[in-house]
Amino acid sequence: MSKIWKVAVIGAAGRMGSEAVAAVNQADDMELVAALGNGDSLELLVEYSAEVMIDLTVPAVTEQNVRFAVEHDIHAVVGTTGWDQERLSNLETLLKEHPSVGVLIAPNFAIGSILATEFAAKAARFFESVEVIEMHHPNKVDAPSGTAVHTAQKIAESRAVAGVGPSPDATETDPDGSRGAVVDGVNVHAVRLRGLTAHQEILLGDAGQQLVIRHDSFDRTSFMPGVLLGVRQVAENPGLSVGLDRYLNLD
Amino acid sequence: MSKIWKVAVIGAAGRMGSEAVAAVNQADDMELVAALGNGDSLELLVEYSAEVMIDLTVPAVTEQNVRFAVEHDIHAVVGTTGWDQERLSNLETLLKEHPSVGVLIAPNFAIGSILATEFAAKAARFFESVEVIEMHHPNKVDAPSGTAVHTAQKIAESRAVAGVGPSPDATETDPDGSRGAVVDGVNVHAVRLRGLTAHQEILLGDAGQQLVIRHDSFDRTSFMPGVLLGVRQVAENPGLSVGLDRYLNLD
Amino acid sequence: MSKIWKVAVIGAAGRMGSEAVAAVNQADDMELVAALGNGDSLELLVEYSAEVMIDLTVPAVTEQNVRFAVEHDIHAVVGTTGWDQERLSNLETLLKEHPSVGVLIAPNFAIGSILATEFAAKAARFFESVEVIEMHHPNKVDAPSGTAVHTAQKIAESRAVAGVGPSPDATETDPDGSRGAVVDGVNVHAVRLRGLTAHQEILLGDAGQQLVIRHDSFDRTSFMPGVLLGVRQVAENPGLSVGLDRYLNLD
Amino acid sequence: MSKIWKVAVIGAAGRMGSEAVAAVNQADDMELVAALGNGDSLELLVEYSAEVMIDLTVPAVTEQNVRFAVEHDIHAVVGTTGWDQERLSNLETLLKEHPSVGVLIAPNFAIGSILATEFAAKAARFFESVEVIEMHHPNKVDAPSGTAVHTAQKIAESRAVAGVGPSPDATETDPDGSRGAVVDGVNVHAVRLRGLTAHQEILLGDAGQQLVIRHDSFDRTSFMPGVLLGVRQVAENPGLSVGLDRYLNLD
Repeated sequence: MSKIWKVAVIGAAGRMGSEAVAAVNQADDMELVAALGNGDSLELLVEYSAEVMIDLTVPAVTEQNVRFAVEHDIHAVVGTTGWDQERLSNLETLLKEHPSVGVLIAPNFAIGSILATEFAAKAARFFESVEVIEMHHPNKVDAPSGTAVHTAQKIAESRAVAGVGPSPDATETDPDGSRGAVVDGVNVHAVRLRGLTAHQEILLGDAGQQLVIRHDSFDRTSFMPGVLLGVRQVAENPGLSVGLDRYLNLD
Repeated sequence: MSKIWKVAVIGAAGRMGSEAVAAVNQADDMELVAALGNGDSLELLVEYSAEVMIDLTVPAVTEQNVRFAVEHDIHAVVGTTGWDQERLSNLETLLKEHPSVGVLIAPNFAIGSILATEFAAKAARFFESVEVIEMHHPNKVDAPSGTAVHTAQKIAESRAVAGVGPSPDATETDPDGSRGAVVDGVNVHAVRLRGLTAHQEILLGDAGQQLVIRHDSFDRTSFMPGVLLGVRQVAENPGLSVGLDRYLNLD
Repeated sequence: MSKIWKVAVIGAAGRMGSEAVAAVNQADDMELVAALGNGDSLELLVEYSAEVMIDLTVPAVTEQNVRFAVEHDIHAVVGTTGWDQERLSNLETLLKEHPSVGVLIAPNFAIGSILATEFAAKAARFFESVEVIEMHHPNKVDAPSGTAVHTAQKIAESRAVAGVGPSPDATETDPDGSRGAVVDGVNVHAVRLRGLTAHQEILLGDAGQQLVIRHDSFDRTSFMPGVLLGVRQVAENPGLSVGLDRYLNLD
Repeated sequence: MSKIWKVAVIGAAGRMGSEAVAAVNQADDMELVAALGNGDSLELLVEYSAEVMIDLTVPAVTEQNVRFAVEHDIHAVVGTTGWDQERLSNLETLLKEHPSVGVLIAPNFAIGSILATEFAAKAARFFESVEVIEMHHPNKVDAPSGTAVHTAQKIAESRAVAGVGPSPDATETDPDGSRGAVVDGVNVHAVRLRGLTAHQEILLGDAGQQLVIRHDSFDRTSFMPGVLLGVRQVAENPGLSVGLDRYLNLD
């Protein structure tokens, strides 16, 4: 008989949290033992014997939630932002006292998005040219997206290691900036369009050929397979892991 | 029996000209009666009874070629650039003396590209958001492409007539210009990628839906169906026509 | 001051109906005067002076709803299926007694989808090759989609009128049927993929070029702009109109 | 100073061969020492001290060419088809007598195409649904393409190893076969379109997201970077390698 994980969701009333509650309830190998909202006591995690905590709360409380979990030997899968270097260092210190506990903190749980970045970086050393286009809903306040910047950085690293030069570009006149942003030497374009959610396309070109890697996030459910994968593997990965790519065993 | 057009190609040794010679030779309803290069006498058009002249030369000689054709009651299909307002006015004056002669001057003979622009402009009044992405080989010196600028202008006109406001955009921070150029209120992005030729994509978005219109020009042969269509219809369109869209009867 | 339409939604508790209620509430030029569900009396339409009725009910009751509206000089915008030829004929007879009343019955209110089909049909006579790919969620029980069949039929009609022959195809061996369905001479491919909703892509090819027209329906909200456009124009279109394309003035 | 490879091209007058001659001539780290056509003696390879032979000939002569190279301690990069299991076995036997010689036989030298297949196989275990669409020029006689079949097989293997079940599909009625071919449980669709060359798109879908991996081969030059990469690495890979993916170090 396969393992049934006892899972608690913290921040269960939020938009992501309520999706996580639904996803855990639908997973055959998980049992939802607690769904905590604002003001609920963390002691309930212990009372209901949670093995893994999913934290989808807010920056102000995520650190104390995760520290509570680690101190009670509960693994944690964390999608909340706000983990700066100091918080991460403190957490690692605490984890040394609980060497069997695993914590996964991931800024992005959409597996397809992580794969797109990973594949683009791997392919980038074989192509003369590479550019990134990200497309989002028009209510987004920053451009380009953090994901696109991250992808451009990974591409740049991969090309630097392989000794590949910059993408060729003979542009002499571009009065209005149509060539977009240049992030670590990679041109990045941001589209804002009603109807879209979060999309990224990486174009790689060489003589006579093109490779296109595209990821579409249509809604929040796109994060749930990644969250569940985190729950299933966090116990086998003691210590701190930042980024879901560590769990995907792509190499 | 259907009509067989007697066609002459001027500039026959050039890159576009040689494609036109091949295209005319392959067309069942055309006979190539002359293929003139640099230094050949225009009198050969008369000698060989050409009915339609295809001019694919250079700005320095195209005007005298076309005027010769009109004066000898030969229709002309012209893909050469360099026709400013003065040249066009002079040609119209000449055409009045030869009311049965047709001249088509077109900056772009790729039918698909013309359709893409036309469809985008028609659709633009029904969508909250619209942006343009053009993609070309990295040896291109200007950005964005003339075709993309033309498309943005036609989109802007269509939206102005319909009273549609600007595309929504909440962007507050974009330090490196990832949002691209703004042409007549329409965001235009230019990609340069080895392996590509000339491509354009128009994205139209509204609540819950997206319409994408994309054109790919893979090589120079893409212009030939438009040139042949011009040959077949120029006699029925006496006077001066600028732009192949006039012949496509899209309305 | 611009006109404020008094609108009633019938079938207001259903999935489409509740979206329509929300859309009417958000429209500046409309006032929701009634939202009727199962069992509510149609007399409320009269009591609250509805000018336009939106019917999003079920085949069993849509006919009596629309007839009630026409008899009380209320215009109707109808998204319910089940209108066979007999029902349509009876409705037209009734409409002759109420010559100022307009009824719009549309199988598809996604404006982008209607435009995609329309543009594909217009372009199809200029390209040697054309194929259709539709993509839907994997719970769909029929393939290909009705929209794709409709698109293929319109393409075939357009090519027949223009005297364009079949798309070239040298396939000799295709043991497993990878070339898809052939609908009125047009190859149609159906993809089923978790995460997708309703998408259609028309590929048109000629020497050296490709034109791609793609529509994505991400969710039910994609139908609302079409429903509101129907409300705004139904009074100006007395009699029966089948299909929203009649209102788009594309020519 | 970096190594300059002395390279000979066999089949130099053919379509692929002439591209290879041009590519070697343009490579800074290669010197073309011989370009052999039909009837030229293989002894010229020895006379001009070739270190690597590129064989782009025909099935009837490729085996004797490669055996000659191995016997004279010349590495070989082979793009010719016709290498059945017996030929490969015999070659491996011969290579044991020349343990420092490397031979690379690859059915596909388009690096982007190999990457697309590789990435699709890696991603396939994370997604509920996966389908393959290949698009080619309409003169192709077989469907689906060998590359698409290969991709489907690699995807199927990857999913089998990970214990992933078949893609969900509720289709009940599909009278004309729009769902395409099923290759090892993966639906494969073949499009034939004038203007296209060789293209492949792999669609992977899960709740709320899609990953698309697409490769476009626009012309024969797309194979040359892969051929040159083979030349540069064949000496470091003694023995027989089948498939360029072995050289890409993707893991």
